[in-house]
Amino acid sequence: MRQLTSLDALFLAHEGDRTVGHVSAYVVLDPSDAPGGRLTIDALRDMMHSRMPLLPPFRWKLVGVPLGLDHGYWATDPEFDLGYHVRETAVPAPGGDDEVATLIGRLFSQPLDRQRPLWELYLVQGLADGRCALFSKVHHALVDGVSGAEILGAMFDLSPEGREVEAPTGSELEHPPSPVEMLLRTIAAAPKRARKQATALPRLVVNAGAIPGSGWIPGLRTAGRMARAIARPLTGDDRPLLEPPSGSAPQVPFSNRLSGHLRMAHVRLDLGEVKAVKTALGTTVNDVIMAIAAGGVRRWLLEHEALPDEPLLALVPVSVRTPEQYGTFGNRVGGMVVPLPTNLRESDERLAAARAAMMTAKQRHEAVPADALIDATRFLPPALFAQATKITLGIAGRPGVRPPMNLIVSNVPGPQVPLYCAGARIESLVPVSPVTHGVGMNITVMSYLGRIDAGIVVDRDQVPDPELVAAGMEEELEALKALAVAAGNGAG
Amino acid sequence: MRQLTSLDALFLAHEGDRTVGHVSAYVVLDPSDAPGGRLTIDALRDMMHSRMPLLPPFRWKLVGVPLGLDHGYWATDPEFDLGYHVRETAVPAPGGDDEVATLIGRLFSQPLDRQRPLWELYLVQGLADGRCALFSKVHHALVDGVSGAEILGAMFDLSPEGREVEAPTGSELEHPPSPVEMLLRTIAAAPKRARKQATALPRLVVNAGAIPGSGWIPGLRTAGRMARAIARPLTGDDRPLLEPPSGSAPQVPFSNRLSGHLRMAHVRLDLGEVKAVKTALGTTVNDVIMAIAAGGVRRWLLEHEALPDEPLLALVPVSVRTPEQYGTFGNRVGGMVVPLPTNLRESDERLAAARAAMMTAKQRHEAVPADALIDATRFLPPALFAQATKITLGIAGRPGVRPPMNLIVSNVPGPQVPLYCAGARIESLVPVSPVTHGVGMNITVMSYLGRIDAGIVVDRDQVPDPELVAAGMEEELEALKALAVAAGNGAG
Repeated sequence: MRQLTSLDALFLAHEGDRTVGHVSAYVVLDPSDAPGGRLTIDALRDMMHSRMPLLPPFRWKLVGVPLGLDHGYWATDPEFDLGYHVRETAVPAPGGDDEVATLIGRLFSQPLDRQRPLWELYLVQGLADGRCALFSKVHHALVDGVSGAEILGAMFDLSPEGREVEAPTGSELEHPPSPVEMLLRTIAAAPKRARKQATALPRLVVNAGAIPGSGWIPGLRTAGRMARAIARPLTGDDRPLLEPPSGSAPQVPFSNRLSGHLRMAHVRLDLGEVKAVKTALGTTVNDVIMAIAAGGVRRWLLEHEALPDEPLLALVPVSVRTPEQYGTFGNRVGGMVVPLPTNLRESDERLAAARAAMMTAKQRHEAVPADALIDATRFLPPALFAQATKITLGIAGRPGVRPPMNLIVSNVPGPQVPLYCAGARIESLVPVSPVTHGVGMNITVMSYLGRIDAGIVVDRDQVPDPELVAAGMEEELEALKALAVAAGNGAG
Repeated sequence: MRQLTSLDALFLAHEGDRTVGHVSAYVVLDPSDAPGGRLTIDALRDMMHSRMPLLPPFRWKLVGVPLGLDHGYWATDPEFDLGYHVRETAVPAPGGDDEVATLIGRLFSQPLDRQRPLWELYLVQGLADGRCALFSKVHHALVDGVSGAEILGAMFDLSPEGREVEAPTGSELEHPPSPVEMLLRTIAAAPKRARKQATALPRLVVNAGAIPGSGWIPGLRTAGRMARAIARPLTGDDRPLLEPPSGSAPQVPFSNRLSGHLRMAHVRLDLGEVKAVKTALGTTVNDVIMAIAAGGVRRWLLEHEALPDEPLLALVPVSVRTPEQYGTFGNRVGGMVVPLPTNLRESDERLAAARAAMMTAKQRHEAVPADALIDATRFLPPALFAQATKITLGIAGRPGVRPPMNLIVSNVPGPQVPLYCAGARIESLVPVSPVTHGVGMNITVMSYLGRIDAGIVVDRDQVPDPELVAAGMEEELEALKALAVAAGNGAG
């Protein structure tokens, strides 16, 4: 059995009370080359059955440790039932963006069942032009974005014909142990765990202030100051490993508690156009995407007469997975908090500010050991940790509490070769990522085959109209293209 | 504001931990006569908007009493949002019984959001032959089966043209009070509440043993014996008002804890055929329906090699609403536990046994004051009551605990005139009713326009194949028809 990491446990503890803990992707398929010209639920189940050997976490279910004495374990589910996880549904006619966004918002709002392996895959029928789609839900505790790409690699093929997958080797089946066994196992592991915590504690409490949201955990900042005083004689150094974000974020209409009902919008941009802007204006694709997000969010804030004078603060997740850790599944993800220049009037100012903010944040972030943010969640014993997370969630989004950030903006690299699923050609891959109390908007971007798809997920009660953000992002790319043309003329 | 009754509170307390508290109906529509030949979500929302004055409970949301000192209240939701409640979805092609049953099972499994009025209405597109459907979810705390018929009356019309509905009169809006106001209100009401409980206590504890599931509440039977001893000098009588069921039910594969995932099957019978059987064999429609249910469940038990020697025990809900109480909304429903003769080999034996069992149960039940079963839930203070319900649910379905009943069989009278919804003709009305821990099957039957539709709801993990029960019910009607023909020949 494999024990949950502290970050896995964080993602589980965050869930509930109207937040979901899974990540999703929405994949549009053209089934005209598939057998019979369509993708059936039986064909999809057959494909997933053949690929299960590549996806051992898809058979894992949670096994708790009695009394919350330690993080839980993953064990292979002896009653695994593929028909439960691979499902069929449909959108009403005409099967356009609105109908899809409504369906995805609802499916995404529903938590995964913790008594079963933490994933679901929906085949969505009824899209316009004879298309169908897949919608996946995988708990963040099971995988992060990078391992997510590996899941896509297991499910998708480089040709319509698919490939042979080897049968599972050896006995991978480990039955979930009884509560008594779990208790014994935990007691036996206690000395080692105590040592781990003792080692990690001084270093990590020093840096606790840099964990997003940590300011809400009562006493944590005081503990950090004390720990720095203790750590100095031990390490000869009291500089924090991570610089805390410079301040709290402005209050915006999506800084409240979640309603539990999510909505999404989808925007599709041309990767060639984004690259042309990047080249003409001497910046990076990432910076251009931040500027486009800033433009889209500014448009929404203006229309709702809620534009703050200061920039919003965006959490930008970054992978801290080392090359050796690829393929091991599990969570290896951290985050940096970056100002998003929604307050600047002109597109060129926003691009320049986004570029400067990303550069500063990356410099800070690269100075940090790759596993610092993962370790950062290990300094509290598990039960207390879950408690602290709940306290954090309980405070976030309350009136009068300034949020530590306003939204999440994430750029996930996608495949640049054509992919197929059960013989159907993949047209686009749209990421769908969660929001949380006080942070009611998530813009996640993925590139695939010359296009960039952004999934904008929002809380329904706080942002009833995410399509305004999508429209604003399209407008921003147009404005940046005009700047690029002007810059090209000036240079030539 | 209107306070929840004890039974409303029971239905709320029962919910959670993988049980749902709502009742549903699945309504198939032929939209060919509606404007444009189809029913749109906009037309449905317009219709529901115009009918809201007839459905005040559809704007009610729950307001809790701090510290659980008393039952909560219903207050009009100031942020009521019809677009949230009236939704559109679709089934994949070919839109047949299987696709519909899968969708309904999933929608029915999801609890209603307690922060909003406790109902949802789905327009289901994509059914075979150009049909569409409605699927409603209304919390049992808001209405029972009889008030449910009144809801249908508000939503549906006697002609495709619909009708004019009066605008709401006066100010019906009562904003939800603050927690402090609720606390004050509760304290002010305490003397009256204490008196009510003092009066109800002796009579109801005497009969507590007859409440389904009461055997699981620790100490309740002892309390009942003591209360009888106390009540004798007061009332001169120690006979229980309700006779406890004669024993506990046999263990069957659907006597376990719920998985939280429901499935349904649907069977359609000809009301004329059922009536012909009833007349030829000298019994009632209700008895024939019980016999058909017994035959269907026997078929399933045989195929799963799980047929007990004893009859199953079925809870049969009965309305205890007096004529004056019609139209007042709220819960007025009780239940009787009746042996279901699944153990008998021949159809004629099963019909005779069902008839005898129903007669005995009804005689017992009619001897009881109409409100006894409603009062029965009033004898415990609300917080303790919720606690007791949770203990009951915690024990039900555990290994080694004999269930007090095996399934629910319910016969809801339906309208016998053609009905229309937003101009579309209603083809059939299929009831969809909940199951609970230890009682993983519910067969609810409704008649409409010469047909009988039965919705069979089961727990997915305990009964993966409810369609076997449906097929068995059809076979049973065939067998009874043959008996009726033979009886007719014998008589003629």
